[in-house]
Amino acid sequence: MGKIRIGIVGYGNIGRGVEQAVARNEDMELKAVFTRRDPADVAVKTQGAAVKHFDDMMSMKGEIDVMVLCGGSATDLPVIGPEVAANFNTIDSFDTHAKIPEYFANVDKSAKEGGNVSIISVGWDPGMFSLNRLYAESILVQGSTYTFWGKGVSQGHSDAIRRIKGVKNAIQYTVPVEEAIKQVRSGNEPKLTTRDKHLRECYVVAEDGADREAIEQAVKTMPNYFDEYDTTVTFITEEELKADHSKMPHGGFVIRSGETGCEGNKHVIEYSLKLDSNPEFTASVLISYARAAYRLSKAGESGAKSVFDIAPALLSQKTPEELRAQML
Amino acid sequence: MGKIRIGIVGYGNIGRGVEQAVARNEDMELKAVFTRRDPADVAVKTQGAAVKHFDDMMSMKGEIDVMVLCGGSATDLPVIGPEVAANFNTIDSFDTHAKIPEYFANVDKSAKEGGNVSIISVGWDPGMFSLNRLYAESILVQGSTYTFWGKGVSQGHSDAIRRIKGVKNAIQYTVPVEEAIKQVRSGNEPKLTTRDKHLRECYVVAEDGADREAIEQAVKTMPNYFDEYDTTVTFITEEELKADHSKMPHGGFVIRSGETGCEGNKHVIEYSLKLDSNPEFTASVLISYARAAYRLSKAGESGAKSVFDIAPALLSQKTPEELRAQML
Repeated sequence: MGKIRIGIVGYGNIGRGVEQAVARNEDMELKAVFTRRDPADVAVKTQGAAVKHFDDMMSMKGEIDVMVLCGGSATDLPVIGPEVAANFNTIDSFDTHAKIPEYFANVDKSAKEGGNVSIISVGWDPGMFSLNRLYAESILVQGSTYTFWGKGVSQGHSDAIRRIKGVKNAIQYTVPVEEAIKQVRSGNEPKLTTRDKHLRECYVVAEDGADREAIEQAVKTMPNYFDEYDTTVTFITEEELKADHSKMPHGGFVIRSGETGCEGNKHVIEYSLKLDSNPEFTASVLISYARAAYRLSKAGESGAKSVFDIAPALLSQKTPEELRAQML
Repeated sequence: MGKIRIGIVGYGNIGRGVEQAVARNEDMELKAVFTRRDPADVAVKTQGAAVKHFDDMMSMKGEIDVMVLCGGSATDLPVIGPEVAANFNTIDSFDTHAKIPEYFANVDKSAKEGGNVSIISVGWDPGMFSLNRLYAESILVQGSTYTFWGKGVSQGHSDAIRRIKGVKNAIQYTVPVEEAIKQVRSGNEPKLTTRDKHLRECYVVAEDGADREAIEQAVKTMPNYFDEYDTTVTFITEEELKADHSKMPHGGFVIRSGETGCEGNKHVIEYSLKLDSNPEFTASVLISYARAAYRLSKAGESGAKSVFDIAPALLSQKTPEELRAQML
């Protein structure tokens, strides 16, 4: 049986992670990487994989089973998601929460017209965390769900600091508050404010002669990003930033506690991730759902789907018989 | 829209848990409980629910959407599983691991002939733990999965102690070794023996004048059950057993760690449960899968399925639109 032929659309951190994930899955092969840059300037690691321009995608129609869309959710995916879904099965990690219904509808229309399967919002949040919220709430109908993120880098918050006058570079870690997690794990269903749940740790490289006190104030009082949190600002050198903060770790916790029966029996369901590399893990989730999209497409399905619609067996390289015998 | 009409087959700990779980799910109602005892001797808590003998099941055909089979896996389910599946949609928590393929085949044949949907081996292990093993392995293809159980009561081990001469009553707790969990969480993929992973704590009520030293020896050296574990035996009174050990707590951990990319980035995925009542939690899982069986049956499907085959959205009372907007 032939391998599942993967295309990568966008060769940033996630795209490079997808390339690595394909290499670790024996039933897949990378056929092509599509980039907005000059393809001559993009060197991929996979022998035999083509590098093509975005505009050349149609030249590979029929040669790629699933396109993994690795663009950003703000401006990129809303355009290319429906566009590519018209001609290929797709997987993406669209994560602008408020716009998911609209994005789903647009991709669904396009995928149905093209007879393709598109699984949207795949990754760990949205993605594995969403699944765990759903499973836990379906089991413990009366209860409370809590999501904690981190410790991990938030690109949005790091960018916000970098826009402050006098800041040369910066990185921001979202850190869950250990005491809050402890309370949640106790099953007491505490009421927690934004400030109770997460801290924000900022490492800032200031420009020569910049007013550090002003920078620290600007960070800590920034509306939406920092003002509702306990925030620490630590000034470091560019060398320290490169040496100690160049990885992209992340992770977090989804915890639901709830009650069953008539004697008030309590239960706690917890799912957690501790990730050395956020983009590589996200890419690994994308690739397992690419397998599901491929199988559903072969079975004649079409349209947009989310992780909620995908039977878990579709993600595995194992057959249903092997799964029941070895893993159930 | 009418409620999903549930039947309970077998009114033990799990059956009573299912009754409570139905009461906590607004889209369901309990229609009948089927028992092998004299129905006149069985009082259920749900107003309006019938109590009938096992042999009267067919009298309710067409009046029950899903039968939840709450019998034991050793002798009960292998017989009634295929039998009931011929006439009703069913859910069960069949957990004799080695016999799952055979049981699946028998139920599948019967359910297909009857045009019904049967979801087997539902609960937390097999069940939610199986799902988490599958998801984690599909994402982190290179890695190691560890399952720890407890702290919780093992009925099989408690029964084994009760069969020892001079033992009046006993309860056995399976306890995961904290140091082993710590090693696994570090991502180092340790090799762990049976003894490394779990302890066995036994609380024993001895008969008057029994040889306690002989009992302790008999427990600790019992093949398969205790000889491969570090086991503690504590003698207590019948009153202490009732006062301190009458609950049925359980829980455990599924942890997978693995590597991605080409720089050796490590990731740890952990799922854990802390349950006050093993049967009530199991029953809550059964009931969420009863909803899925009902929906699949309405959609025209038939045959045996496991949790691996069920798209998560089918478990929830929420619509796909609500799920995407609120939970993704």
